[in-house]
Amino acid sequence: MHTHILPKQLPNFAEKFGYGDFIHLIQKSDNTADMMQGEKFFRTIESNCWDPKLRIDDYEKFDTQVQVVCTIPVMFSYWAKGKDCAELSRYLNDQIAEICEANPKHYLGLGTIPMQDANEAIKELERCKEIGLLGVQIGSNINDKNLSEEEFFPIFKAAQELGMAILVHPWNMMGMKHMTKYWLPWLVGMPAETSRAICSMIFGGVLERLPDLRVCFCHAGGSFLPTIGRVEHGLNCRPDLVAIDNAKSPREYLGKFWVDCITHDPMALEYILKMQGSKRVTLGSDYPFPLGDLEIGKFITEMGLEQNIVEDIFCNATLEWLDINKSRFDV
Amino acid sequence: MHTHILPKQLPNFAEKFGYGDFIHLIQKSDNTADMMQGEKFFRTIESNCWDPKLRIDDYEKFDTQVQVVCTIPVMFSYWAKGKDCAELSRYLNDQIAEICEANPKHYLGLGTIPMQDANEAIKELERCKEIGLLGVQIGSNINDKNLSEEEFFPIFKAAQELGMAILVHPWNMMGMKHMTKYWLPWLVGMPAETSRAICSMIFGGVLERLPDLRVCFCHAGGSFLPTIGRVEHGLNCRPDLVAIDNAKSPREYLGKFWVDCITHDPMALEYILKMQGSKRVTLGSDYPFPLGDLEIGKFITEMGLEQNIVEDIFCNATLEWLDINKSRFDV
Repeated sequence: MHTHILPKQLPNFAEKFGYGDFIHLIQKSDNTADMMQGEKFFRTIESNCWDPKLRIDDYEKFDTQVQVVCTIPVMFSYWAKGKDCAELSRYLNDQIAEICEANPKHYLGLGTIPMQDANEAIKELERCKEIGLLGVQIGSNINDKNLSEEEFFPIFKAAQELGMAILVHPWNMMGMKHMTKYWLPWLVGMPAETSRAICSMIFGGVLERLPDLRVCFCHAGGSFLPTIGRVEHGLNCRPDLVAIDNAKSPREYLGKFWVDCITHDPMALEYILKMQGSKRVTLGSDYPFPLGDLEIGKFITEMGLEQNIVEDIFCNATLEWLDINKSRFDV
Repeated sequence: MHTHILPKQLPNFAEKFGYGDFIHLIQKSDNTADMMQGEKFFRTIESNCWDPKLRIDDYEKFDTQVQVVCTIPVMFSYWAKGKDCAELSRYLNDQIAEICEANPKHYLGLGTIPMQDANEAIKELERCKEIGLLGVQIGSNINDKNLSEEEFFPIFKAAQELGMAILVHPWNMMGMKHMTKYWLPWLVGMPAETSRAICSMIFGGVLERLPDLRVCFCHAGGSFLPTIGRVEHGLNCRPDLVAIDNAKSPREYLGKFWVDCITHDPMALEYILKMQGSKRVTLGSDYPFPLGDLEIGKFITEMGLEQNIVEDIFCNATLEWLDINKSRFDV
């Protein structure tokens, strides 16, 4: 789970809608394209970003049969008008659904929804389910608003009712404009974003009010799990600031949400496993991007973990998160 | 180490300098005062913030004889003119030096310096040494600039030459204005700030160029140590972005800097100890503030660690960081 995919071509949404720095692609060669944010270069992507067959072969090298795909966070376009973002979302979601339908033994899909407009978001969430997607990926914040804001609650409630899983991905990183060197928004900002999202969903009472909502947080939950002592102590020593919407300890939610295993570090993963239990730690890769674990969990096979723990991480945790059965992948 | 102190009274610096939201105190009773940032309430403090005798008694309750004191980060005033900040710093530093001189068996002092003006900062750093302080506390960023910026390097160089220790404290937290609920700047922003500071000092080559600089980072290094896999992988996969000033792995600096033990969590502390070694993990408290460990390491005594490890944390690591001898505290 947690891999990114994009269509090979994108309509010119900026031209169509008449505003905004919607992402467009400039094809550089058969194998590379530049993602452009208006006039601004965002990143170069390669054909492993759009070619389903090539991706299956890449995964095969690491004995991995199935990948859970979702878009790249910069595509969220939460800043756009709700209706326009819904149209863009439908375009991306349809492409993912097509790939999943054409390759049911290899692909599972998550959609994207216009979080800035709850009505549009719920409509697209329902449609995602109809076209066979198993959940949606959302950002760690929505236009700088936290996931605790009441305007997002109806969306989460709908996801619980529909049985759609949620993947929370860090993006729009705090402090970005003052961390221009050394890739710090990715190395420092992203782990903080994920902690911000988990804290917001706990302290805002989202996880408490929606106990059947299946949420997974990227990058092993960012800095949340390793700083849980501080977070919990904050609640205990200043309930007037922290316990205003939910008085339960953050520790009570351990093992209730999922995190992926992307730590690049055996010792950190051991710590995560102790806190979450192996049934709540999924095999994430962040493929095909360089900061991901492009050996798809190789470091985990070398950790000497018990086989059932490895199987939980490599398979069972994701099946439970997405509420599906292993047998659908029998070949 | 890592406790905060303030004079009972502060001059009206805003009036004196004719500008700025310098902190002033409004005495509420014999035991409480409000810290005001201009017209804005910042926090209420109690007499344990300024009364040396009361603090010694408080520490005595937890069998702790010595405390390393420094100011409260909001006093840094890096936004002010260098000369004015230098004057404010001298006022604060003199008070700390007096307390240390009057109670040599109980207090060790760290100063504050005007980081926004390297010349003034170095002058005050030299003066701090003359009045018996053992180092200085600085912020995790200086007016949003990172510690990797070359303008700060002469200050670090002077600290190495003078043998003055550095304590890096998170403050001016990234993302603060979008995290108004649940105390998130303290629970999420601060750990990120400390990681930002460590990454900046590593990737900016400060620790590499100044191998004898003794630096300690607050709150167990924030999110840096638990996310070191990601940080290291970032360097390896995108050296064009990360390795521009220093190509060495962040892991090479483990055990070269110090962190305090403030994790509020035995499992997190075990992880920190494995990475840093017990000689580089100091007993921090953040006393007298509620988010601190106000039982002064009680959770550590209950962890069942070997006695020499506990002694390292409770005493030896701090002695080495400050380059002093235990015998000066013999009573």
